[in-house]
Amino acid sequence: MLKKIIIAPDSFKGTMSSIEVCNIIEQGIKNINPDIATIKIPIADGGEGTVDAFLTAVEGEKVFVKVKDPLFRDIDSFYGLLQDGTTAVIEMAAASGLPLVGEDQNPILTSTFGTGQLLLDALEHGCTRIIIGIGGSATNDGGIGAAAALGVKFLDEEGLEIPLNGGGLSRLHRFEISEINPKLKNCEILVACDVSNPLYGPEGASYVFGPQKGADDVMMKILDENLIHYADVIYKELGIQVGELPGTGAAGGLGVALMVFAGAHMKPGIDIILDTVHFEEALCGADLVITGEGQIDGQSLKGKVPVGIAQRASKHHVPVIAVVGDIGDDIESIYNIGINAVFSTNRKSIPFESAKMRCRNDLLKTIESVIRFASIFDV
Amino acid sequence: MLKKIIIAPDSFKGTMSSIEVCNIIEQGIKNINPDIATIKIPIADGGEGTVDAFLTAVEGEKVFVKVKDPLFRDIDSFYGLLQDGTTAVIEMAAASGLPLVGEDQNPILTSTFGTGQLLLDALEHGCTRIIIGIGGSATNDGGIGAAAALGVKFLDEEGLEIPLNGGGLSRLHRFEISEINPKLKNCEILVACDVSNPLYGPEGASYVFGPQKGADDVMMKILDENLIHYADVIYKELGIQVGELPGTGAAGGLGVALMVFAGAHMKPGIDIILDTVHFEEALCGADLVITGEGQIDGQSLKGKVPVGIAQRASKHHVPVIAVVGDIGDDIESIYNIGINAVFSTNRKSIPFESAKMRCRNDLLKTIESVIRFASIFDV
Repeated sequence: MLKKIIIAPDSFKGTMSSIEVCNIIEQGIKNINPDIATIKIPIADGGEGTVDAFLTAVEGEKVFVKVKDPLFRDIDSFYGLLQDGTTAVIEMAAASGLPLVGEDQNPILTSTFGTGQLLLDALEHGCTRIIIGIGGSATNDGGIGAAAALGVKFLDEEGLEIPLNGGGLSRLHRFEISEINPKLKNCEILVACDVSNPLYGPEGASYVFGPQKGADDVMMKILDENLIHYADVIYKELGIQVGELPGTGAAGGLGVALMVFAGAHMKPGIDIILDTVHFEEALCGADLVITGEGQIDGQSLKGKVPVGIAQRASKHHVPVIAVVGDIGDDIESIYNIGINAVFSTNRKSIPFESAKMRCRNDLLKTIESVIRFASIFDV
Repeated sequence: MLKKIIIAPDSFKGTMSSIEVCNIIEQGIKNINPDIATIKIPIADGGEGTVDAFLTAVEGEKVFVKVKDPLFRDIDSFYGLLQDGTTAVIEMAAASGLPLVGEDQNPILTSTFGTGQLLLDALEHGCTRIIIGIGGSATNDGGIGAAAALGVKFLDEEGLEIPLNGGGLSRLHRFEISEINPKLKNCEILVACDVSNPLYGPEGASYVFGPQKGADDVMMKILDENLIHYADVIYKELGIQVGELPGTGAAGGLGVALMVFAGAHMKPGIDIILDTVHFEEALCGADLVITGEGQIDGQSLKGKVPVGIAQRASKHHVPVIAVVGDIGDDIESIYNIGINAVFSTNRKSIPFESAKMRCRNDLLKTIESVIRFASIFDV
């Protein structure tokens, strides 16, 4: 008997945001049985839409702030203030995202300064817990822009402030942390990070993510050398070795600055969101969890939303189904980690370009079928 | 709690026979829960494979017979003798089917004589009920070949026997039924027929089905005129008007001869098979029926296997799901006639040409998902 269903999908990459997916799944459930209670938890990926996803899962408000974009131009940005009044959710993309630079992509010049301004505003707002999603950045500055906004001074050999971008790091000689915002001490900062790349080297920020930010071969080499130098300075000043830490290569090294200067922790995004929305409390009394994503296969389970969902749900013996666009081959492994069944939204044998156009209705109808089928067992 | 499932699918046109579909669905069920009892009832469409489908649903044996093919060449053919020992199942295609003439398609020359020989053998075997599937014929002879094999003489104005084919009909003047096999009197003959075309005219046998049997425009006109003449002779001799009867246009008019000379009845194929396999008795104690076909939509429900299955199952309050290749738009109407839910076997957004190659595994995995999902409710 289905009385309460939790809807906790990822986005369907390239077609629907997780909020849209949530709403369609809820509609499909209600179309067949309006008496089923639903709880919507759209899972954010840390990029654009992360704040909206949190605000859908947990009530709260958007706070609007003027900040600097990656090229130091003034823009209107925002972050989310959750209903507890003390937790902020920031999406880096809203201040330092790639779309903000348009054609002017250049990770030598771009800065995370605006992201630091969002953090600062949240601190001034009295937040004691700040969640930051770092997807979609335009930057490779090791986070010095963000740290500078919080009060850290990055100086060259002559004691002059360096440019707060990926190019400026080459001139870094030392930094000064005495003027850092004192409120950071009482604030927990969580960086949602789903990659394990180190800060530098062939698997590091510059070589792996540089090209999508506009770096050519020469630029990548410069950026990588600058991050090595940055790590050396940090080690010399603070005795902390950051270069090999997994995840420090995300978002052009933003995590490094947040860890070193602001005491941040990196955590998988799915864990942060599920903790924040009190997912395990929501599971109480639920009969089913419906999760989903654009594509699932047996190879890349790490960090996948349906997997994170299933691991927690199975602890509480709540069954989980995944509704996905394409189902890859060899998905048997997902049944071992707590997903009970997987349904594809494909209802016609047509190529993706055509399937995309009808994906919303296909998802709706698939959910309806699932709920219709479940109704058979409602005795 | 699923304890007993009836598997009763149509073929998936162009990819899998109904027997294959049955076996795959059974395998999918057993892979997830070997304790579920299954009953397989592959639904035959009256064409090639009909005998095998009946023999899968009801035990029995194949009887092998030498007969004449559509061009009067000797071939090895067969029919099915069901376990009751008195019911025969004949597929016309095994004696008078299109593949038997290869490139020599010519409905002026082809004859249903071989089909009559199969009927005769079944009669001699003591059968008192003969089911005949009439799909895939190469003929347009109004069934005079079959009737002749059973003892009817078709004569021209001079009292000479006419050629037993679509061309010969033009010379028909009268017929002689005194030597018809006497065993026909005590035999019920059921013609499985799912079309409602009349014998002649623009919707008749020659114009609608002639082209696929090799008729060009000139030939179609001759064939149609010959069937009109045939109907006239029947009316003159027996006072029976056959031309407008729905279904007489099937199989080049074979049904006409079987009705007029052998007292046959035409019935929808699905009803014949479901009666023969005692479907409603099988429903007793069943928790679920799984039906399916290659494609379902809301437009053409008439004569559809899932619809026939659902109508009977819903009378006995057994839920029905349909597992199909493609799901058309606007299928809401099928929920009103007793189908509880529909699932597509498409698991990737790829065109039909590619989907075809993997359809067996896709069907298996879809059934597994359905049974996995149902297991959630097994408390």
